[in-house]
Order: sequence, then C-alpha cells, then structure tokens
Amino acid sequence: MAEREATTGISQAYPDRVEVRGRDLTSDLMGRLSFTEYFHLLLTGREPTEEQRYFLDLLLVAIAEHGMMPTNVAARMTLAAEPRSLQGAVAAGILGAGPVLLGTSEACAALLVEAQEKVEAGASPEEAAKDIAAEYREEKRRLPGFGHPVHKPTDPRAERILELAAEQGVAGPHVALTHAFRDAVNASRGDRPLTLNISMPMAAVMLDLGFGSDTVKSIPILARTAGLLAHLAEERAGPIGFEMARAAEHAVAYEPPADGGG
Amino acid sequence: MAEREATTGISQAYPDRVEVRGRDLTSDLMGRLSFTEYFHLLLTGREPTEEQRYFLDLLLVAIAEHGMMPTNVAARMTLAAEPRSLQGAVAAGILGAGPVLLGTSEACAALLVEAQEKVEAGASPEEAAKDIAAEYREEKRRLPGFGHPVHKPTDPRAERILELAAEQGVAGPHVALTHAFRDAVNASRGDRPLTLNISMPMAAVMLDLGFGSDTVKSIPILARTAGLLAHLAEERAGPIGFEMARAAEHAVAYEPPADGGG
Amino acid sequence: MAEREATTGISQAYPDRVEVRGRDLTSDLMGRLSFTEYFHLLLTGREPTEEQRYFLDLLLVAIAEHGMMPTNVAARMTLAAEPRSLQGAVAAGILGAGPVLLGTSEACAALLVEAQEKVEAGASPEEAAKDIAAEYREEKRRLPGFGHPVHKPTDPRAERILELAAEQGVAGPHVALTHAFRDAVNASRGDRPLTLNISMPMAAVMLDLGFGSDTVKSIPILARTAGLLAHLAEERAGPIGFEMARAAEHAVAYEPPADGGG
Amino acid sequence: MAEREATTGISQAYPDRVEVRGRDLTSDLMGRLSFTEYFHLLLTGREPTEEQRYFLDLLLVAIAEHGMMPTNVAARMTLAAEPRSLQGAVAAGILGAGPVLLGTSEACAALLVEAQEKVEAGASPEEAAKDIAAEYREEKRRLPGFGHPVHKPTDPRAERILELAAEQGVAGPHVALTHAFRDAVNASRGDRPLTLNISMPMAAVMLDLGFGSDTVKSIPILARTAGLLAHLAEERAGPIGFEMARAAEHAVAYEPPADGGG
Repeated sequence: MAEREATTGISQAYPDRVEVRGRDLTSDLMGRLSFTEYFHLLLTGREPTEEQRYFLDLLLVAIAEHGMMPTNVAARMTLAAEPRSLQGAVAAGILGAGPVLLGTSEACAALLVEAQEKVEAGASPEEAAKDIAAEYREEKRRLPGFGHPVHKPTDPRAERILELAAEQGVAGPHVALTHAFRDAVNASRGDRPLTLNISMPMAAVMLDLGFGSDTVKSIPILARTAGLLAHLAEERAGPIGFEMARAAEHAVAYEPPADGGG
Repeated sequence: MAEREATTGISQAYPDRVEVRGRDLTSDLMGRLSFTEYFHLLLTGREPTEEQRYFLDLLLVAIAEHGMMPTNVAARMTLAAEPRSLQGAVAAGILGAGPVLLGTSEACAALLVEAQEKVEAGASPEEAAKDIAAEYREEKRRLPGFGHPVHKPTDPRAERILELAAEQGVAGPHVALTHAFRDAVNASRGDRPLTLNISMPMAAVMLDLGFGSDTVKSIPILARTAGLLAHLAEERAGPIGFEMARAAEHAVAYEPPADGGG
Repeated sequence: MAEREATTGISQAYPDRVEVRGRDLTSDLMGRLSFTEYFHLLLTGREPTEEQRYFLDLLLVAIAEHGMMPTNVAARMTLAAEPRSLQGAVAAGILGAGPVLLGTSEACAALLVEAQEKVEAGASPEEAAKDIAAEYREEKRRLPGFGHPVHKPTDPRAERILELAAEQGVAGPHVALTHAFRDAVNASRGDRPLTLNISMPMAAVMLDLGFGSDTVKSIPILARTAGLLAHLAEERAGPIGFEMARAAEHAVAYEPPADGGG
Repeated sequence: MAEREATTGISQAYPDRVEVRGRDLTSDLMGRLSFTEYFHLLLTGREPTEEQRYFLDLLLVAIAEHGMMPTNVAARMTLAAEPRSLQGAVAAGILGAGPVLLGTSEACAALLVEAQEKVEAGASPEEAAKDIAAEYREEKRRLPGFGHPVHKPTDPRAERILELAAEQGVAGPHVALTHAFRDAVNASRGDRPLTLNISMPMAAVMLDLGFGSDTVKSIPILARTAGLLAHLAEERAGPIGFEMARAAEHAVAYEPPADGGG
C-alpha cells in the first residue's frame, strides 16, 4: 500500500480473525500464553524465555501494590465523585505514576546504561559508579534510586529482587553496577545509609535480561493498574474516598491574606 | 469536497489566518471579545447578548472554586507525584467532576426540561414539580439539586443566582420551576428543609437564557479548571499534596483478613 | 484505633516489610505468584484456583489488543504531543475504555445476572433469554453484547472462549444463558445474524467461575493497559501519532456558517 | 491551629458563605467580576489591572482554538467511546497539552527570563538573544517558540499580539527580547525565515505585565479547555469521532514480522 507510509507491527483485526505480532490470536495465543507472556510479546514482539517470564512476573508482583499510596487515594476520591466511570478513576490514579513515586525506574535504567558504557570503555563497575555518584554530588543532584519514605534501612522488595536474581543466575553487569552504586552512595554516610529502593534493582534485572531501557517504565504502570483496580473494587463495595478527602482537607488551614484581600 | 462527509463548524487554521465560527480570529475576535464571550461563541456559534454574557460570567465565577474539594486534593497529589506535568494534574482533577460533586447541573437541566414539558401541556409549575418530586419519592430516588454537605440551611450561591436573575429580569419558566421544586421537596420536611444547592438555579438560568440543556455541564467543567489551575499554582509554589495524602492514608486502618490470609 | 472507622483490606507498607491481603509480599508472594494470580488475589482477596487462573489469563489475552483501536490512536496522539509522559498517554487511552468499545462486558454481566435470577425462579434459560430479549426489542433498546464493526458473522474470540469453557468443563449456567441469548436474538433475523461479540462470553465465564459481576470490567481495563503500553513503546521508537492525527483532521471538512458568521 | 502546618490561601467554604482570596464570593465577587478577572484573582491572589485583564482576555482568546488539533481529535474519539463522560473526554484532550503542541509557552518564558537576566547584567537585548540562540545552535537544541506546521512565514496570532502590545503601550523588555530572538534566529536563514509562533509573544506579554513565569502555562490549558468543550458539544450533537478514528487507522499499515512471528 504505497500511500500508507506509517506502519505498525502490533496487530490487525480481520472479519474472521485477529493477528497479533504475526500470530493468530484465537487459535495460537489464547489459552497458550499467560497474560505476562502475552504482555512481553506485545511489548517486544517476542515471546519471553522462561527466565524473562519469571522475572517479569516477579517485578510486576513486586511493584503493583504498596499500601494506601497517593495514587490510590486520588483514584478512590475520583471514583467517589464519579461512581459510573471506573476507567476515569483508573486514569486519575495512573496520572500520579510520575518520577517521584514510580517513574524512578526509568531514570535508574538510564543511569545504569550510562555506567555500563563506562565499564565497556574500560572502567571497573566500582569506578564507574563512584565517578557518576561524585558527579551528582558535585551538581547537588539526587541520584535516582536512593531513599524511601517508609522503608529504612533497606527496602525489602529491592533486597528480594537482588537475592532472586543471584539465585537464578541472571545477575549480570547491571546488577553488579547496582551493588556498586549502593556502595558508592553509602561510602561516606557512616551509619546513616540511604535506602536502595526498588527502582534500581528492577531496572538492573530488566536490562540484564535484555529488555530495552525504554520499556522499563511500562512495568510499574501495568502493575499499578492492577493495584488501582483492587482499590477501586474495594471502594465500590464500601466507599471511603470522601472520608479520605475530608481528612486531607482538614490537614490544611485556610489563611486568607492579612489585609482581608482588600 | 465530496469524499469528506464529516464536517465541523468550529474553526480552521490556514497558513496566514485562523477562522473561528466564520470570523477571522486575529483581525476580528482577538482584542474585541472577552474570554467569556469567546467561550459562548465557541460553544454555541453565536456571540452572547449582554444578558447571556453577564450570567455566563456570573455562573462561571459562582462554581469555579469552593475550598479544598476532593478534585483539588486529587489534582494536588498528582502534581506532587509528577511535578513536570501540569496538564496531567489538571486532568486528574477534572476526572472527579462527576455527578456527585459537579455534574448535578446536567441532571437538573434534564429535570427542568421534563417539568417544563408538563407545564406546556397544561400543568402549573407547582403541579409539575409536585408530581415529579412525588415520583422520585415513590421510586426512592434522590431528586437532583437538593442537599449539600457544607451549606445549610441554604446554599448562598444558589440564593444569589436566583436573586440576580430576578433583579435583572431574566427569571423565566425554569427559574419558576426551581422555586416550585424547592417548595415541593420541603413541603413535608417541616423545620428540616433540604438545601437547594447551586446546581438547579445554575441550570434554570441557563435554560431561561436560551442555552441548550446539553451545554449546561460545560460551565462547571470550564470553571473548575480555573480553580484547579489556582490550586496547582499554589502547589507548585509550596507543595502540600503529599501532606494531604498522608492525612488521607492515616484516616484508614489496614485490616487484614482474620485468618491471616491463609 | 478507635478514631479510624475507614478500613482497607488490601495492603500496608511497614519499614521492613509489605503486607498484602494478609501475606508477606517479599517472602511469600514475590517469585511464587504469577502476575495474573496476584491480580486475582488483589482484586478478590483470594488466590485463584487453577481453573480461575487459566481463564483469567485467557480473558486478559483475548481482550488486550485488537488493532489500531480508537483508544490506541488517542493514546499515540497524546504521546506525540507530550513525549515525556508515558502515563499521561496511557491515561488518555484508558479514558476511552467506555461502554461503546469495552465496557459492554459489565452490561452483559448485569444482563446475565438478571436472566439467571429468572432461571432460579423456575424459567428455562431459553425462556429467560427470550423474555429479556423481547423486552429490549419492545423498548427499542439494543441488547448488550451483540454486533461488531469488524467481526462478521462471528467474533472468533467469542467462539474460542466458549469452546475452551466447554472443553475445560467450566461452562455453567451463565454460559448456557449466553447461548440462549444468541438464539433468542437471531431467531427472527434469518440469514442476517447479529455477531455475538466477546463481551458476553467473557462475562459469562467469569460469573461461572465465581467472580462478582462488579469485577468484570476490571479485566478489559487491565488488559487494554498492556495493549496501550505496546502501542506507546512502538510510538516512542517510531512516532506516527501526528500522521494519524493529520489523517483524522483531513477526514473532516470545515463548514463555516452560511452567513459568514455575521 | 497549631497542628495544621499546611495552609492554602485560595478559599474556604462555610455553612453560610464561601470566602475566596479573602473576599466574600456571593456578596462581593459574583456579578462584579468577569470570569477572566476571577481567574486572575484565583491564580495570583490579586484582581487584575485593566491592562492585565485586557491582555489576559486577548491571550485566552488567541490560544483557545486552532482547528481540528490532535487534542480535539483525541477528545472526540474518547467521547465517542464513552458518551456519558464529558469530563473524561476533556481530560483526554488536556493530556495532549504538552510541550510539542502547547507547552512551549512555558519554555519561552524560561528563555525570556534567562535573557532578561543577561540584559540586567549589562548586555543589550540583541546581544543576549544572539548569545543564547548561538548556544542552542551549538548544542543542536531547537530554540523554543520558532517553527509552525501550518503558519508560514508568520503566525498571524503572534503578530497580532505584538501589534496590540505595542499599541497599548505594554510592550516592555520581554517583548523587546522577543523581537531580538526573531532577528537572531533568522539572521542567517536568508529568505527561509522560521515562523515566530504564538508561544513567545504570549509569554513575553505576560512577563511584561507582571505575571510569574510559572503561571504562563495555565493560560493555554484554561483556553484549550474552552475549545475542547466546544468540540465535545459539537461531537454530542453529531458524532464524527469514530469516523476520524477510522481515517487515522487507515493511514497505518499493519506489517507483521517477516518470519511470520515464528
């Protein structure tokens, strides 16, 4: 079709069948692939190896739910205000999946890619991590992946991911760099180490398994959607969104301008 | 253009000019119309009369801001989590502009149109309102436009809209029906009257000024966007979104299943 | 904690661990549950049986992707306009997961529940379906779950779901009603049968497996999020969003008012 | 209230009144302020001068609508898919108000602030603009505010804003820098000048009128919401969203992997 220059390699629906990534949806994929395997196929065009499947499941489970997060609060308030629109409430929740709460994994992936380039150019992982950490300190920028408001001194999810990556033999250069970054960051902090949070181990394992750094952020977004849907099912069954909104409102005092606004 | 059956009457950009509703944007509209007048032109295809302009301004001002509403809370939390995306936070806030908080005006417009049909078929406004209110009571449905969590026994915005509509001589059949609905609802409630909230007077004035009932909900959505932008500017200058999220979270206790989830 | 009346049963983060549905996230769930099993646990509080797991995977795979749907188009345009916000583009796409495209499954679940009540009151599935279909015809309402813009005369996904449900022995009363509805709808249509689309088989299998009708819509929303993420990864790698927007724009002719807007 | 450290200066609802920025909403603001004046008060805490009001109206009118933009297309498709949720469709449209289409005004404001600092440090506007433009060229970054897909060689809205700013005597240092940037960018481009689009004049006028650079992006977001509401009212009256989606879909060819996905 000469006049159509734009192309997609994902899927096409025909009257009698649906083709996805070159495969027949109903006769081949449905019933054969798990949702996680299908997500991998959709995202990358390839079915995962068993290792990729295992860690994709692991990471999706690790990041999906973490208590009454601000995104869950915002979604529940939105459903309370518009009970007919489940998708509106999900969308409101996903909009908070930003760098502060969830997007750090993408920044960590970029950091690990940068460090790995130094390693491939001859540096040791320790040197690469140390150099980059020093750079951030000088520029007074915060190194992504460190610090957590709840988990101290360690983030149990981060530790478990690293443990399983070592056990299953998938820990490669990016996991090695993750350990090096932790050492570099905490070298000078004595007994007040910064928590290595879940973001860098998550990114490292994905990179070591061959995922592109661009796809890293897709994991927390899909995972959190599952968590949001659980909160919204609970909200539908017993609404507490407005009660939370009231508590939030009461935490803030109105202070009009001193001159009465005149 | 025979092959294009779909049409729009709103606007078109050309290399050297922009046409909106048949007018030249730069030589005619910019600098001549206020934003409110332009909004009217965009929405209806016509420039407003002075009365329509006055009440459109009045209603937009009346509904734009009302304290730390759940929509403002949700938007501020979303900005705190993703500070780079002002539009994401606005979108999260708008998603809560549903029937519970803001959308009642649309339901009120439908109710007034239904009642006015009865009036045109011969009923008095009092009879029409009484019949419909009785119907809702029988079906145990809540009549839209009544009750307010904060404003008791009256909503000062509702009263002010009705007052100005009377003063300016624009109160027509739909405003008359609004008074009739209030009487019908409160006839049997003795000294515990339900608050007539802002939604029905807003809808009534719009209908009496010739707006279609379909456009009624556009007013609170545009107005609240202004309020949201104010909250988000304040949030940018001094973030309190996460503090509100914490208060919301603390208002909720985690109660695991009694059997330990086993 | 007497002062906190609101409760959640989903999860809680502590400094050294995260508890989800009464289980320890890192020592118990991570690495043991697949994402689909975890989604079931999050949504319902229970781990799925093998049958529930199999069909949840099946349905998520069936509904996740279906070509360049309007929701994918909207999401890709949004990413083209704001490349930094993956979550904003996902949210824009999810907002179109409404009744017209995806939400029919919820309406189908309600229909099946209503029909099953008739069956439990003594009607045969055929009678129950016939009665309800006749009711819809009289009220000139469209029965949810029938008709499809692309798939004619059958939706291959619907057929495959019914086939696998029969094979695996999970087809219960709601699947029986689905067949009855198809017969009732097409009895009078001769050789122009309406397509039974994916929505009713999806809802029927979920109900037969013990899912609540409230959770039915969560499946297409989670599934489509995976599809959206695939489209957005492709859009990032090779943007076509603006090209699609141009094609959409060119399909519409601007027709100013005949009087030149005067 | 010692325990509440978070404060807001915007508004508070009381049972019998609503206070906004230290003023009484119903007795003072409603009926006195236009929506534009109220937006200024909400955003900045101050009522506008007549000049500020005039240019705020001008800029809101200038940027609200510009044909069948991708954001309007995305919003109309979303409404077609979920006709009950006007706010969902508005949100989908606003999410595309990113740097590529609309957010450039914020980047332009930052650029003008940076240049004005050089001017205050002794440089002439011409030198400041030339230096910064040269810097961007060296780093191969695109200077924000230049180029337009439709308007060539000039953007009529940009020219009209500059014209009215000169006429009304509000053109100050930031407008002067805007002219200097245009000259610096086009000095070496001969007869292929880049279009100065609407973003920099908009930002310049706002800065010259005393608005903070942080508030600049609020203008296009509020303005576009009005445009979106017009498109959605038209979509409700005569749906073309799916027709546009079809045209977009047809512009893209599905190209499965060469190996059949095997």
